[in-house]
Amino acid sequence: MAVDSQRGELPPIELDRASGLPLSRQIAGAIRSAVSGGALRSGDRLPAERSLCRALGVDRMTVARAYEELASEGLVVREVGRGSFVRGRTGKASRPHEAVERPMRWARAFASRVGQVNHPFGALQHTASQDGAINLSSLYPDPDLFPLDEFRAALNSVMKREGARLFGYGSAEGYGPLRKYLAESLTRRGAAVTADEIVITNGSQQGIDLVARSFLDPGDPVVLEDPTYTGAVHLFQAHGASVVGVPLDPEGMDPVALDDLLSRSGARLIYLIPNFQNPTSGTMSLKRRQHLLEVALRHGVPILEDDFGGDLRYEGAEQPSLKALDIRGEGVVYVGTFAKKLAPGLRIGWIAAPPEVVSRLVALKRVTDWSTSPLLQAALHEFCARGHLDAHLDRVVSIYRQRRDAMLGAMRKHFPADVRWTRPEGGLVVWVTLPQGVDAEETAVEARTHGVLVSSGDLFFIRSGPRTNLRMVFGQAGLADIEKGIRILGRILDRRVREADRASATGTAESLPVL
Amino acid sequence: MAVDSQRGELPPIELDRASGLPLSRQIAGAIRSAVSGGALRSGDRLPAERSLCRALGVDRMTVARAYEELASEGLVVREVGRGSFVRGRTGKASRPHEAVERPMRWARAFASRVGQVNHPFGALQHTASQDGAINLSSLYPDPDLFPLDEFRAALNSVMKREGARLFGYGSAEGYGPLRKYLAESLTRRGAAVTADEIVITNGSQQGIDLVARSFLDPGDPVVLEDPTYTGAVHLFQAHGASVVGVPLDPEGMDPVALDDLLSRSGARLIYLIPNFQNPTSGTMSLKRRQHLLEVALRHGVPILEDDFGGDLRYEGAEQPSLKALDIRGEGVVYVGTFAKKLAPGLRIGWIAAPPEVVSRLVALKRVTDWSTSPLLQAALHEFCARGHLDAHLDRVVSIYRQRRDAMLGAMRKHFPADVRWTRPEGGLVVWVTLPQGVDAEETAVEARTHGVLVSSGDLFFIRSGPRTNLRMVFGQAGLADIEKGIRILGRILDRRVREADRASATGTAESLPVL
Repeated sequence: MAVDSQRGELPPIELDRASGLPLSRQIAGAIRSAVSGGALRSGDRLPAERSLCRALGVDRMTVARAYEELASEGLVVREVGRGSFVRGRTGKASRPHEAVERPMRWARAFASRVGQVNHPFGALQHTASQDGAINLSSLYPDPDLFPLDEFRAALNSVMKREGARLFGYGSAEGYGPLRKYLAESLTRRGAAVTADEIVITNGSQQGIDLVARSFLDPGDPVVLEDPTYTGAVHLFQAHGASVVGVPLDPEGMDPVALDDLLSRSGARLIYLIPNFQNPTSGTMSLKRRQHLLEVALRHGVPILEDDFGGDLRYEGAEQPSLKALDIRGEGVVYVGTFAKKLAPGLRIGWIAAPPEVVSRLVALKRVTDWSTSPLLQAALHEFCARGHLDAHLDRVVSIYRQRRDAMLGAMRKHFPADVRWTRPEGGLVVWVTLPQGVDAEETAVEARTHGVLVSSGDLFFIRSGPRTNLRMVFGQAGLADIEKGIRILGRILDRRVREADRASATGTAESLPVL
Repeated sequence: MAVDSQRGELPPIELDRASGLPLSRQIAGAIRSAVSGGALRSGDRLPAERSLCRALGVDRMTVARAYEELASEGLVVREVGRGSFVRGRTGKASRPHEAVERPMRWARAFASRVGQVNHPFGALQHTASQDGAINLSSLYPDPDLFPLDEFRAALNSVMKREGARLFGYGSAEGYGPLRKYLAESLTRRGAAVTADEIVITNGSQQGIDLVARSFLDPGDPVVLEDPTYTGAVHLFQAHGASVVGVPLDPEGMDPVALDDLLSRSGARLIYLIPNFQNPTSGTMSLKRRQHLLEVALRHGVPILEDDFGGDLRYEGAEQPSLKALDIRGEGVVYVGTFAKKLAPGLRIGWIAAPPEVVSRLVALKRVTDWSTSPLLQAALHEFCARGHLDAHLDRVVSIYRQRRDAMLGAMRKHFPADVRWTRPEGGLVVWVTLPQGVDAEETAVEARTHGVLVSSGDLFFIRSGPRTNLRMVFGQAGLADIEKGIRILGRILDRRVREADRASATGTAESLPVL
């Protein structure tokens, strides 16, 4: 701090929210002025993104965008783990630097919409990359459960049967037998679709991307649950869409807030995860599904239903998908994936949509990357047709149920009394709510130093979220590791709850309601 | 024709090119008025796109967009192989139709940029889909040459060695050893890049897509050779870019025209195919490469270099890539693919770009579809590391050279004297220029009825092109089929040249210069 006080400091920034100029531009402009006016000099450290966004009352993305803009101009250098530093335009006060001497041709050449692509999964991936740690952070299936022998047999069988044909361009809509299999599978679950209404994609991520390209022009608002899947938020932002969050209650997205928002926002798309929502783990009630669909249809705004984990159910009755409830086919585009129920690395997902939507999606798929590998599609179909997928699901559902129960049991045993958590009917995560005064991110950072990886819940909020939640994944770790990880986390929480109690004037921490 | 004359007819359309209203909108508006005014009734057939675009002097895309707009409103029904028909808004005069009664919710929900995605490869794919025909149309490698056994062995070997790890999420930038292999391979060919400067993509099509997303905002002009690869044109248009063509001469894109265009257009990207250009088969001279790069650097506009076929060279010295000439790394992004030299269905291509571009591309790749299948990347790397790719290239280069020579020889033997064609140094196509008065598309249609598939050259022009060229592919057909196909085509051309001579007042057809 002594060093910092000898340096320049960023003067207070006043934002004009009525000006129409994006807030990130205003922040970047203020920093530029501080440099040109001499308040900040080359080598000075800029405020951490997190603290600046709190100080200004803006979301983190806004500050990140401002810094990114300055970095691409060469005015700011971002150093991983250290922060962002002023480089100075003239280079007078700074060390000679190879990058300074080089014209910033590329930075000038980038499209402005690229400024909206940050490195979305950086924070999450970082938490998952520590060797030997107990991973309760990554929302991946357990790779050790992948039925490699069965898949290899299916792969060799289709190569033998179909030969070089599987190495030619496939059709943009996907491998016929796999589309048929998926249509039948959805139909059995209540959403009557034909093979013609299925498009194969490179995982559900490309499914969401194609839907975003089909429905969103730059500037269009898109409505999401808040918190939600970070990968969707960043994808929509990369299309220049305006991302709007609607809060969740235990039954799902608030339909009254949605109705209100659709009345005034001109929203073009609603993104929902009805089953085992990421990150809150909740399952939308039937009544709520019907209500949200009714609201969306009334406003004529399509729903993108992400059913990434619907097959991994451990208890309770399956709810009909929104796609199944949309009997006239006028409101819902459904995306699914083999990533969680089988293997992410196949990069195979699918979209189920009405014919007029499918024809647009297929045209977009074709210009985007022609087709998904016919070889992998054929092998996956063979694997499913031989009954291996069903057998695999039986097996992993039983294993993941045990892991869920182990996690819930360990939480009961090791967590302080004021901590609350969900009991998920399926999926791979538990959503934990910490008592007031206990900071989730600091807890996650401390846990990491003790070899336990968990995700701070605020990462999943669209704007800066409350730092009161942890997302805990039980898909990766075995039973013993789950018990051990929760025990370690319990000790950390015990101490932090006591400290919070001491810090609190009244001596009692008021617990927040569980989401 | 008797039936048509009893029906309504589209009144002449007057376009106002100064109005700022897109021409496609004006055409759609005129047709709407014709329907509401009663000149066109439900069931009436609209003019064929081709004839309307000729009558109005606009490119085919403009008319296609107008019809697409009307179709998405439900005013027009497009029937494959029959044409476009007025449906009528009220449905009074039309048969009851399920789709008419249903609200066009989806059409209203689509993003306006989707209107710019037509079904780009429809016309080309159609010509290639005839069973038993001699295919001189599809720019694919010969699937029978794919070394299936070697690839299967590589695939099984990596599955055995790396196991389930290959079925987890891969890194967005790609499988490390494959990036290293590609970097070394580019470096050997004169473009010194490191593995960090390589991004693996789902074929070069996704490479072009990611570059378009990085550099083009909607409305930005992008400059292409004219004629060029249709898939790039449609991709750029799907991003809302404004596609501008610059003519080719035998050495490549006209650098003076490019310079002039960059001075006044605000172009953001230049797309070039320096080797064995599609469709003209020409290879850009070294001098032209240097000249175009100099122009691009001077204007600060990046070049996207598509080297889809650079390895398939049959004669002459290899020219340095633009990427190799761009020694300061300030002007060129390079895309390559395994599609033509090995197999399209692997869906693996790559981008080589400076680090600051790579980091943007990787962020975009991640939000777009996370990663390309690690399994296929690892298998491909193993295949290459075992030397199978080099052996395969030796083999196919020799085979394709024979096929090229067979095609050129057959053309000398069977084509009329006034027909001209290129002698490609590599790649898989020959570009044929027909004598004046001989219509390329009619020739292609007639050839198809005789079981020979060729592509009419006008398909590859950005705006309506001259109907004087044929693109002939020698990659798919064997030697005997090439000889037979050219003989059949020669007979057709003989007759058409004689007819053109008779039709010509002077009795001699003036031949156009060979491109």
